[in-house]
Amino acid sequence: MTLTNRRFVLASRPDGAPREDNFRLETCPVPELVAGQVLVRHHYLSLDPYMRGRMSDQKSYAAPQPLDQVMIGGTAGEVVATRSASFAVGDHVVGIGGWQDYAIADVDGGAPSIRKVDATRIPLSAYLGAVGMPGVTAWYGLHAICDPKPGETVVVSAASGAVGAVVGQLAKARGCRAVGIAGGRDKCAYVVGELGFDACVDYKAAPDPEAFQAALRDATPGGVDACFENVGGMILDAVMARMNPFGRIAICGMIAGYDGAPIPLAHPELILVSRLTIRGFIVSEQLASWPKALAELAAGVATGELKYRETVASGLERAPGAFLGLLQGKNFGKQLVKLV
Amino acid sequence: MTLTNRRFVLASRPDGAPREDNFRLETCPVPELVAGQVLVRHHYLSLDPYMRGRMSDQKSYAAPQPLDQVMIGGTAGEVVATRSASFAVGDHVVGIGGWQDYAIADVDGGAPSIRKVDATRIPLSAYLGAVGMPGVTAWYGLHAICDPKPGETVVVSAASGAVGAVVGQLAKARGCRAVGIAGGRDKCAYVVGELGFDACVDYKAAPDPEAFQAALRDATPGGVDACFENVGGMILDAVMARMNPFGRIAICGMIAGYDGAPIPLAHPELILVSRLTIRGFIVSEQLASWPKALAELAAGVATGELKYRETVASGLERAPGAFLGLLQGKNFGKQLVKLV
Repeated sequence: MTLTNRRFVLASRPDGAPREDNFRLETCPVPELVAGQVLVRHHYLSLDPYMRGRMSDQKSYAAPQPLDQVMIGGTAGEVVATRSASFAVGDHVVGIGGWQDYAIADVDGGAPSIRKVDATRIPLSAYLGAVGMPGVTAWYGLHAICDPKPGETVVVSAASGAVGAVVGQLAKARGCRAVGIAGGRDKCAYVVGELGFDACVDYKAAPDPEAFQAALRDATPGGVDACFENVGGMILDAVMARMNPFGRIAICGMIAGYDGAPIPLAHPELILVSRLTIRGFIVSEQLASWPKALAELAAGVATGELKYRETVASGLERAPGAFLGLLQGKNFGKQLVKLV
Repeated sequence: MTLTNRRFVLASRPDGAPREDNFRLETCPVPELVAGQVLVRHHYLSLDPYMRGRMSDQKSYAAPQPLDQVMIGGTAGEVVATRSASFAVGDHVVGIGGWQDYAIADVDGGAPSIRKVDATRIPLSAYLGAVGMPGVTAWYGLHAICDPKPGETVVVSAASGAVGAVVGQLAKARGCRAVGIAGGRDKCAYVVGELGFDACVDYKAAPDPEAFQAALRDATPGGVDACFENVGGMILDAVMARMNPFGRIAICGMIAGYDGAPIPLAHPELILVSRLTIRGFIVSEQLASWPKALAELAAGVATGELKYRETVASGLERAPGAFLGLLQGKNFGKQLVKLV
């Protein structure tokens, strides 16, 4: 029996905000496995802001997504056919299988492209969120760059998102004051009420930068010692003005500027005035931190102490629309696409 | 005999670029010494860009210079009267004596405000430059933040200045490619020909930011691994675009924006794209580094390996004009005022 695979390829590069027609759905037969390969049926596709950068061909830290090839994306699924002694049918695995129903993984070489996970203690989808790349991103940026001491104030933007939610909870666990920034009353209520942040500033409720600055000031009466930045633009400008001397800013993302002209940083002189350290990072370059981070995150999710929320679109065909929504902040927590 | 002291006080805060009438020359008698004090006759007054920040009352890392009090400034001179067993008449000393001919120093408390220096091996004026605060500034920023490895490219702006000249020479001693940025053909010729930098970009020869960017590209064919930034504005924007992955930027000064509205940083997304680390610092907060830095710098000056140049204005009354010139880059090397 020949299986049929559906996949999204990048059809064109966006000019400004991406549109659904930048992607093209293709249908093709799943090839036969050769020795050393397994076939994975994807259960979940992860949608993440970094994909926006890959759609462009500007200089960046990673090569652009090639046109007419399957869109890059993290995936979690199940082995449905195997020609390797290392993987059995029924194994749950995570990998970077792309925007498609099936993926073939080479597993008997030096660096297998998928790894087995335990989907009994932890839901399979969590391996794409709190116990996956977003969780490790939060863990690394907080520990290696923000490095907050008990009693210090940590601010994180996109606080209800897959990364931000973990940042704030880890900061609370370290005895810090955690202040989120999120868009909308519901997200802010969730950040404080369910995730346990001390405060959350709703940037959508601020009619202008001055109002946002005032709200942030109210939420950070002792200033800000560390910032985990996912947004940039007005958000980062406002946080920089609140930074205490010797503050640390981890630059994880700048989603505010992904679609158009770069947004300048209004007051770089604050780097000097407040003796700040600002550092950009890419979690995939910090492999040494992954085992320790994943162990801690898995323990937190297994016990229920580390909370997270998911927005799940159903069916591969929904992936482009869900991705565009993610870029506009329409998701609430980790954005996934459920494929089975 | 009663000595007469002349001193400049801050008469008013500048609105935009400082003017000579922001300072006021006063004449007053030198008070009698009490036990534990010495009287220092200043030979040299140091003029430094940080003084511009002190003239304003905006939030900064240091308290503003109070109005109607003697302007802050580093000084080198000679003890001319003493009521302390620790200092003898004729001792050469450095301190922060301010813009005046004489200063009284309390020396028998816990932290004497002056320290003795050896003016036989090293010219007295060098203790205000390469073997003083500017030299330690260069040493700290290069070692603690830029931390270049042999073969890496280090860029320093204001390269012929008191700080920049030391940065480049220390970078060369570490086996790096040193590239300066300076204003004017003479300064660039000095930076390469006398200080031994590998290249120097003349920003005054660039009619626009694109031309400057192109000249910097030519001077840094392998990109930039570390930047010691004294200027900000267009200079920093151009260097950021040349930074290699994992580059380091030490923010020591941003003189381009001192007089007016802050100059935005055009492309903060490069912090993420190039995974940069940017850190602002103030050398007076890094006291642990001073002894080691001063020892190394003194050895370099004593042997003649560490070169420097001075622009010396004669007479205290020239201090305001020389300071305004410094802010406009009219000095060539360390700006001093000779008082005797």
